Amino acid sequence: MGKISVTNEYYTLVNIFTVKPGDQRRMYDEIVDVTDVIEKFPGFVSANVHISEDGVRLVNYAQWRSKKDFDAMQAHPSVQEHFRRCRAIATFDSIFCRVEYTHEGGTS
Amino acid sequence: MGKISVTNEYYTLVNIFTVKPGDQRRMYDEIVDVTDVIEKFPGFVSANVHISEDGVRLVNYAQWRSKKDFDAMQAHPSVQEHFRRCRAIATFDSIFCRVEYTHEGGTS
Repeated sequence: MGKISVTNEYYTLVNIFTVKPGDQRRMYDEIVDVTDVIEKFPGFVSANVHISEDGVRLVNYAQWRSKKDFDAMQAHPSVQEHFRRCRAIATFDSIFCRVEYTHEGGTS
Repeated sequence: MGKISVTNEYYTLVNIFTVKPGDQRRMYDEIVDVTDVIEKFPGFVSANVHISEDGVRLVNYAQWRSKKDFDAMQAHPSVQEHFRRCRAIATFDSIFCRVEYTHEGGTS
């Protein structure tokens, strides 16, 4: 479970993958596979994969301890083949961000 | 704090707002204002606003109890003026999705 909070100061990436119709499940499997590799790197906090209603997108809400940890993972030779496979199925947009504000509702 | 989990079955929206350079803080203020209105609707679970490093985007990771609750809020007359103000500052893309997989790291 990922926890979104302004106080944890994680380095957050919202990765949006766009695939061809019919490729959503295949891309999902690739993301889960690559997560099994990435989670072994220092500083990995969480990956949270979402399937969109429109059938052609996936969102991975990913948290890292720091930008330095994320950059070290991304540059490592062992992950390049996994990234290449992802790029063969999907285009993607990575939004690097920080949590600025959270608001929770009551029990209504 | 938002909690991302496959078990809570929330209706999740990843809203990506794109603004002109210099408008990120203004848009942030609008989202916080509209959240103060929206959080009173039944079924609101959480809003989690992120500021992107690139200076021109914001991400609101929003959770609702159900699509029905979200649709009722979105159609309500009281929120239309707020949405109009947001649209005047930003273009946006709403990804309606469900959480399919989460993975947390250890303490490395």
